[in-house]
Amino acid sequence: MSQQLTQDILTELEALRLIDPHTHINPHSAASQTLADIMGYHYYTELAHSAGLAKGQIEEPGLDPKEKVARLIPWLATIENTAQYSWLLEMCQTFFDFQGDRLDESNWEAVYDTSLQKMSAPDWEQSVLDTSGLDGVFLTNDFDDPLTGFDTKFYIPCLRTDDLVFHLGQSAVRDRLQTSTGVSPGSAAELKNALGVLFERFKSGNARACAISLPPDFSPQPVSEAVADPLVAKVFSGEQLSADEMTSLSCFVFWSLAEHCVEHRFPFDLMIGVNRRVFEAGVFQGQDLYDKRVSLIQYKSLLNAFPQVIFPISVLSETSNQELVSYAWIFPNVVTDGHWWYSNIPVFIERDTRARLQAVPQTKQIGYYSDMYKLEFALPKFAMYRRILARVLATDFVADRGWSVEKAILLGKRVLRGNVESIFGGVD
Amino acid sequence: MSQQLTQDILTELEALRLIDPHTHINPHSAASQTLADIMGYHYYTELAHSAGLAKGQIEEPGLDPKEKVARLIPWLATIENTAQYSWLLEMCQTFFDFQGDRLDESNWEAVYDTSLQKMSAPDWEQSVLDTSGLDGVFLTNDFDDPLTGFDTKFYIPCLRTDDLVFHLGQSAVRDRLQTSTGVSPGSAAELKNALGVLFERFKSGNARACAISLPPDFSPQPVSEAVADPLVAKVFSGEQLSADEMTSLSCFVFWSLAEHCVEHRFPFDLMIGVNRRVFEAGVFQGQDLYDKRVSLIQYKSLLNAFPQVIFPISVLSETSNQELVSYAWIFPNVVTDGHWWYSNIPVFIERDTRARLQAVPQTKQIGYYSDMYKLEFALPKFAMYRRILARVLATDFVADRGWSVEKAILLGKRVLRGNVESIFGGVD
Amino acid sequence: MSQQLTQDILTELEALRLIDPHTHINPHSAASQTLADIMGYHYYTELAHSAGLAKGQIEEPGLDPKEKVARLIPWLATIENTAQYSWLLEMCQTFFDFQGDRLDESNWEAVYDTSLQKMSAPDWEQSVLDTSGLDGVFLTNDFDDPLTGFDTKFYIPCLRTDDLVFHLGQSAVRDRLQTSTGVSPGSAAELKNALGVLFERFKSGNARACAISLPPDFSPQPVSEAVADPLVAKVFSGEQLSADEMTSLSCFVFWSLAEHCVEHRFPFDLMIGVNRRVFEAGVFQGQDLYDKRVSLIQYKSLLNAFPQVIFPISVLSETSNQELVSYAWIFPNVVTDGHWWYSNIPVFIERDTRARLQAVPQTKQIGYYSDMYKLEFALPKFAMYRRILARVLATDFVADRGWSVEKAILLGKRVLRGNVESIFGGVD
Repeated sequence: MSQQLTQDILTELEALRLIDPHTHINPHSAASQTLADIMGYHYYTELAHSAGLAKGQIEEPGLDPKEKVARLIPWLATIENTAQYSWLLEMCQTFFDFQGDRLDESNWEAVYDTSLQKMSAPDWEQSVLDTSGLDGVFLTNDFDDPLTGFDTKFYIPCLRTDDLVFHLGQSAVRDRLQTSTGVSPGSAAELKNALGVLFERFKSGNARACAISLPPDFSPQPVSEAVADPLVAKVFSGEQLSADEMTSLSCFVFWSLAEHCVEHRFPFDLMIGVNRRVFEAGVFQGQDLYDKRVSLIQYKSLLNAFPQVIFPISVLSETSNQELVSYAWIFPNVVTDGHWWYSNIPVFIERDTRARLQAVPQTKQIGYYSDMYKLEFALPKFAMYRRILARVLATDFVADRGWSVEKAILLGKRVLRGNVESIFGGVD
Repeated sequence: MSQQLTQDILTELEALRLIDPHTHINPHSAASQTLADIMGYHYYTELAHSAGLAKGQIEEPGLDPKEKVARLIPWLATIENTAQYSWLLEMCQTFFDFQGDRLDESNWEAVYDTSLQKMSAPDWEQSVLDTSGLDGVFLTNDFDDPLTGFDTKFYIPCLRTDDLVFHLGQSAVRDRLQTSTGVSPGSAAELKNALGVLFERFKSGNARACAISLPPDFSPQPVSEAVADPLVAKVFSGEQLSADEMTSLSCFVFWSLAEHCVEHRFPFDLMIGVNRRVFEAGVFQGQDLYDKRVSLIQYKSLLNAFPQVIFPISVLSETSNQELVSYAWIFPNVVTDGHWWYSNIPVFIERDTRARLQAVPQTKQIGYYSDMYKLEFALPKFAMYRRILARVLATDFVADRGWSVEKAILLGKRVLRGNVESIFGGVD
Repeated sequence: MSQQLTQDILTELEALRLIDPHTHINPHSAASQTLADIMGYHYYTELAHSAGLAKGQIEEPGLDPKEKVARLIPWLATIENTAQYSWLLEMCQTFFDFQGDRLDESNWEAVYDTSLQKMSAPDWEQSVLDTSGLDGVFLTNDFDDPLTGFDTKFYIPCLRTDDLVFHLGQSAVRDRLQTSTGVSPGSAAELKNALGVLFERFKSGNARACAISLPPDFSPQPVSEAVADPLVAKVFSGEQLSADEMTSLSCFVFWSLAEHCVEHRFPFDLMIGVNRRVFEAGVFQGQDLYDKRVSLIQYKSLLNAFPQVIFPISVLSETSNQELVSYAWIFPNVVTDGHWWYSNIPVFIERDTRARLQAVPQTKQIGYYSDMYKLEFALPKFAMYRRILARVLATDFVADRGWSVEKAILLGKRVLRGNVESIFGGVD
């Protein structure tokens, strides 16, 4: 009965069309062009590298897509246990008519050829969207992205601000800021104004959120303009800041972003806990890890200072989930957001989901985002989440608490989609 | 079969009468007088506030109880997924004849009226105790509580010491200490004597434990009287202590409490990990959170120094549970104690319970306490715990280890009640 | 069906012969001689001590083995809920014909006598190995262990290096180093050479790994010979090092060990997170605990500096498991290794296993080791692990991902045994 119950709930959740509230989709090239776009996803290259495939084999300059896939295929045998591999299999089965249950040296070429043929169709992108049931896809846009040439009602911009907060010490970042805003900041106020120009542009470009990923040792604090002034002047004159100065400047910029979020009514997505370039010899995007010794108490000042800003928070370490649940239970402006990166595997999703559904107001939970780089990934990733969500609803709510199936399904639909609309605004 | 097995165990556990080893009951007004006493529990006000209800709406001075409930009711829809809401529903169904499965605008007034009628009966308190099967209720008493006017055999006093350890810098606390002990401490020895007066009074008032909640950065260390003397003199002369001085004084007082626990044979309940007033604009009792970066290694000196004192330890973060299990497995004087606050939801209770039953001597586990402010809460909270405990016993012990149902039930009864009696002393 | 499925997988896993990749077996006295050897395992003495048995009763000098068991037996009632007790019961049932389900005052003496008779048989050791299905047993050898007088093809040496890294300040350790290598180091280079002598001897003695346990605050960093030279000279002249100096010396020795691992192609087992002698009055081997505030980021320099060295990593705190999974997912030289000590109970093993199987290449996981001191323990400990592994394979792979039973069994066999051979080298 319990399996049937889960299936009944799942069927309803699968019928729901989705809005994906966080991706890295390039709207100018949203779908894959070859299987190499799919298997080049860092989850596969880093796992193959971890299992033994040399980086040089994966990242050889000018490598032909089919050859790249050919090199990765033999290593799939070492990672077929992983959840990530299961996504690949599901994509091949759903999108490319693959009938097997294992992609290997004996069959990959047929899959490659079929997929190439399908991806070459002019309506491939739309076909993927239809099959996946997507009504909207949030993007991750560099602050100087022109936001033109695509339908911003469907591919919804999001202002990503890591560079502004952490990398103003790089001349390229400062140049991009000056070029995109027309402002050459010499003071804290001018820097804040430059940021305002970005917010204006993103607001008018239909952006729905500001977003940033944060290292585990970051703890935002207010920094006065008086303190920030010499730092802004110094960094924009091309001088190197000390580590302490850089931290102050980062805090100033971060705080200024939150202020602009108030003004422009943007939720501010915080993705907390990543250390960049930990494995320096790793493959592209396969170098980042973390330090679980991080606490949301580091965000106490921020959460108190900005009651008007909604902070959808993602945590990288599963050991942070209970803090996230507790802070969302207490702070009106904290929303739980998805299952990020190293926490995006069933064992952690299941536990995170149970805790959130048991203790956070149902209106304050964004169940899932795909974090995808290519459109094809939304389907297997959301499918994984929905299966877990359906089981948790069946077990914790229908079986344990006597809820009706209908009520459980409504809760599922709310965290899957309803809250995305109420928190970020609906799609048109 | 497995469900039947769980039910068989649960039936036996439900037949067991209970002693609740930690509550915040006011023995002079133990039961609720209106539904506002129940829905005014901070779990509901803070969740409603988190979901969007303004603090001013909840805490308006002079607010009529029925109006307060009326304001909270519409927000229940946002939190009906929570475990906390399930307690409310179970209370309304069990105590107030509510037949529905959702308390909302359409039906709350009838529940309010019925509950008011029932609560107005002169035997309401006894009726709740009977329905809940309670044989004793531990209190949380301020150090200057006179402990008079109630049956201390049933409402068992417990000396709560947060104020003494952390707030001697407040003149009101010093005044209360001087008034209640007749001692005006000018030295460390005199302060220790004053504490001794409190212990004497609590001991003769049938108190069974000393208790305290502790912030995550606290690490008790012995402080000599020579070091403490000037700090005591300074603070009792009304001068402000520096942060370091306050920490030393806190350690001195804390250590002195442990010494008095030796002398008076009190277990010392440690509730480890809470940061007070993190969300400054939160509702009453809805402002505290935590920093999971805490370790029981901070209590190494204490646990080694006081082998004669039993320390029932509660941890706020579920990430501390394994440490608690390991320390209770090794240290004779460490006892696992309940599922505290943010850890008091099924997903964490289940895992904590499994780990403790798998690795801590069965005589050293206090399964549960309600932490309630009003008597009606013991019923749904213990019911939640018993259902989880029954399932863990059925799964981990009967199914996985081949235990008889009878043996599993005995283990359950021991952690539910037997250990409360053996550790704190039985009820008369 | 699901139970049958688990059983089908389990049957196949139980048929697999094993290599135990980490134990503390003394190859000159591998099996127990009396039941006191089994019940003297620190898991039982420390739990009995924790439950109330005085240390003096357990560790009385010259205590007769049977009397020692007689003193421990009454305390088993307090720990029969523990996983550790379940191992004892399974050993008595499997090896000593015990028919009961509870070892107590009424029946222990018969078990003692039967076990004594069996253990006295000249082929007892071989009999245990046969019953347990062991093809090889890794040891933990002091650096000055002569590695003679036993079959190193079966009892495979492993160079344990805690003393070298952390205890060169003790004259006894320096003496043992000088005696066993013939080198009296006066400089960093000479110390490194002395270590090289040890590696040569262990390599020629069929050792397969270098190993060390590490405290939670350790973070290995390279230390130049110029910096290490005066420290080596100072410590080998018998002078006391400061804490900072000792840390530098520890780092230098640790780094040198890793360099020798490159040269001698030894995996370097890291067992991360133990604090020694936390409970100073605890029983033998029952004094160590931990601080969960540790991160694998502390090993960033090491993991980047030694891509040629395989690091099988064990973590003491279950809160470190996700980091271990993530680091093994990214770093080619990180392998997940077993379920260590306080994490070696079903609730943690199950979750660790699920996370690792869902996200780490299957070739990079060493499923289990017994950590045993006496041969009889491999059987119940591996049995516990196999039951959990079988259930995870049945649930997460066959039921949830549609794998065939055969494929799931192959995955199980790989983490149970195959990877031990591929990572450390096969048995002959």
